[in-house]
Amino acid sequence: MNIILLSGGSGKRLWPLSNDIRSKQFIKIFKREDGSYESMIQRVYRQIKQLDEEGTVLIATSKPQVSTIHNQLGEDISISVEPCRRDTFPAIVLANAFLADMMHIDPEEPVVICPVDPYVEEDYFQALKGLAEQADKGEANLVLMGIEPTYPSEKYGYIIPESPEQTAMVRTFREKPDADTAKEYIARGALWNGGVFACKLKYILDKAREMIGFQNYNDLLARYDTLPGISFDYAVAEKEERIQVRRFAGKWKDLGTWNTLTEAMEEPVVGKGILNAACRGVNIVNETDIPVLAMGLRDVVISASAEGILVSDKEQSSYIKPFVDTFEQQVMFAEKSWGSFRLMDMETEALTIKVTLNPGHSMNYHSHRNRDEVWVVIWGEGRTVVDGASRRVRAGDVILMPAGCRHTVIAETELKMIEVQIGENIEVQDKQKFVLDEREQHLSQ
Amino acid sequence: MNIILLSGGSGKRLWPLSNDIRSKQFIKIFKREDGSYESMIQRVYRQIKQLDEEGTVLIATSKPQVSTIHNQLGEDISISVEPCRRDTFPAIVLANAFLADMMHIDPEEPVVICPVDPYVEEDYFQALKGLAEQADKGEANLVLMGIEPTYPSEKYGYIIPESPEQTAMVRTFREKPDADTAKEYIARGALWNGGVFACKLKYILDKAREMIGFQNYNDLLARYDTLPGISFDYAVAEKEERIQVRRFAGKWKDLGTWNTLTEAMEEPVVGKGILNAACRGVNIVNETDIPVLAMGLRDVVISASAEGILVSDKEQSSYIKPFVDTFEQQVMFAEKSWGSFRLMDMETEALTIKVTLNPGHSMNYHSHRNRDEVWVVIWGEGRTVVDGASRRVRAGDVILMPAGCRHTVIAETELKMIEVQIGENIEVQDKQKFVLDEREQHLSQ
Repeated sequence: MNIILLSGGSGKRLWPLSNDIRSKQFIKIFKREDGSYESMIQRVYRQIKQLDEEGTVLIATSKPQVSTIHNQLGEDISISVEPCRRDTFPAIVLANAFLADMMHIDPEEPVVICPVDPYVEEDYFQALKGLAEQADKGEANLVLMGIEPTYPSEKYGYIIPESPEQTAMVRTFREKPDADTAKEYIARGALWNGGVFACKLKYILDKAREMIGFQNYNDLLARYDTLPGISFDYAVAEKEERIQVRRFAGKWKDLGTWNTLTEAMEEPVVGKGILNAACRGVNIVNETDIPVLAMGLRDVVISASAEGILVSDKEQSSYIKPFVDTFEQQVMFAEKSWGSFRLMDMETEALTIKVTLNPGHSMNYHSHRNRDEVWVVIWGEGRTVVDGASRRVRAGDVILMPAGCRHTVIAETELKMIEVQIGENIEVQDKQKFVLDEREQHLSQ
Repeated sequence: MNIILLSGGSGKRLWPLSNDIRSKQFIKIFKREDGSYESMIQRVYRQIKQLDEEGTVLIATSKPQVSTIHNQLGEDISISVEPCRRDTFPAIVLANAFLADMMHIDPEEPVVICPVDPYVEEDYFQALKGLAEQADKGEANLVLMGIEPTYPSEKYGYIIPESPEQTAMVRTFREKPDADTAKEYIARGALWNGGVFACKLKYILDKAREMIGFQNYNDLLARYDTLPGISFDYAVAEKEERIQVRRFAGKWKDLGTWNTLTEAMEEPVVGKGILNAACRGVNIVNETDIPVLAMGLRDVVISASAEGILVSDKEQSSYIKPFVDTFEQQVMFAEKSWGSFRLMDMETEALTIKVTLNPGHSMNYHSHRNRDEVWVVIWGEGRTVVDGASRRVRAGDVILMPAGCRHTVIAETELKMIEVQIGENIEVQDKQKFVLDEREQHLSQ
């Protein structure tokens, strides 16, 4: 099976765990059998690989997520990166072009395209296989998944099929309705549109040729910012005559709010936390090292990260966004392809950061114009390169990097450092990247 | 007026703001007119000074509080320090001996002795003056404050007076009763015993001579650990025949639990925090830089510090102690006489600490056997002395201090540093203090 997982936008509805660079699919909240926790994207990827080890998986996403995806799924995962944000039509075309041109998938093969963040079980992936097989038959150009509604939701679009069979032609689509209208739709046999579909790869490539003069992946990438920002549903699905829907009645949950996310938690506390016996329906999700004590609460979610502490009645938690918008959003923690960092202290002219590199990984070779930096190694072993000079380092070593000097660190073991940045204008943008020359590379390996 | 403020033990009932070294009287929670916050001890000290600028104030406390008291009340405050914990009788004798021998107060003068932590208004201090004047008259040896009960409390001892007059002889004392018994006492005119009393200084010194062979302050200090651990009430007050009580009907609150403390807060939020409109009776006390968002809660207190996050129904908050005992108590923040520190990161063989020195202050000149240290100055100017070598430092400077080297820093302006400690056995006890010799002192000033 060829599958494209759409790893979508940031979001604040799961603040303080989601932020501008970390979307909900990266929050490690689901307990694995070995006691560790995995994120939504890790869970979905693992589920796919369990069902179809040889399958082709491509993640379609935008730039800010790339480091985190590599951190969570490894260096070898294939990623189609939007150079800038467009709507779902350009993103889906780009990912399909990547499949065809970069991964050399035969255009006659079927492709399944689905969001990365529904909370599902194995039967869902069986259903994706069914979609792909149906698309392969060629009875229709597009085969949608139609999810059996469990309540008259106002959050989803609806698909109205021609007949009640397992696979049927689509009669029409309906936009997100109000609850009463949703009831009517459901009475007429309507299904939720979860944005999941399958088609032959060439179908999308042909549509792209026709609609935006697509030639190949590199051409598309180069002029991506000029593409129209329209949705795939609007541009393609709603205009397609040869379109089928295949029913799915298994578990399918959108864990987009604290209320729904906590329902999927297997145990009430993730991270350091204690609930006293008088608590009922209370969840703690604590990413900090600071212990949380909850006493005598009812139907409350408590979530803490370096960026914020939320204490909310579960029902109310869906109204979080406008409040979060009022906080200054400083990213306090991020997962990078090489490891992670945590902002520990901010002064007007100094930042203190804890940097953790994974074994065998290194930062870019880079410099800063307007700040000096100091590293104090507190754990592990590795090498630093400063203006071409390589040096072995271990816990206790101090590395001085005045503004303008080029520097990197290569971790041999896991390597932890305290980085102090000092200057009048400390900005994330103040970073020039360089390539380590051969001699430096040699020295540093 | 001569007043001894008893600054008592630590406590966990206001966790996470109180801990083993910071008692509730040091929590900055009361809003001043200029918008800043003051602690209970700062508030009481300010109130006394407003009423009686020339009065003599002595704080009686134990060692762990000394740095914090200097930090909050200044270097010039007089402190009588118990070398080890005993009960109130030895502590009160020691403080009175300090008044007589170290501060040269005439033993004929009256002294008022009271706890540092009731929440009171100006009329209370007027009442203390009244107590002192009454003691000065010599009608009785001891004059207690009797607080008019506002409800049949089980938390206080009761004083039963001979008559309902403003000042009356004491008939008898009663231990903390149950609520029904308390009602009876109150019907008989009983008053709360808040541990507030006045007497002539010589009265206590004479009692001490008689009971423990007291000679002078230094003698007492030297053999303090051999003194009997008994309370002043038991040792003196309950045996005294010539004892009066003076009524006080003003505001007097013991803010010992979150429930009572939040009642005294003038505004619902101290520190970074937002309550949405659906919150009722919610208080936030946030000492961290991490913003708190509370939504849809009722009668809940939220308190956050580097040591913990409490989210509790207000009624339940009085049962906090056994839970707090289960947390590993690592002191994450402390106020010292020279400034403050905050523990930012703990690894198995490294600690990272933010150190802030107040202008003109310095650390002890000291060394460590088992750890190296690194300072990175991030704000301000000052001088360091390392093994006798003095050096001017400012933001961006890095100071290396291998194990065994003697070091200190003297702040000229406010001075902030990141301190990284590295070693296999990092322990608070690993500290040897030295005196800076004259040449070093000269260099470093």
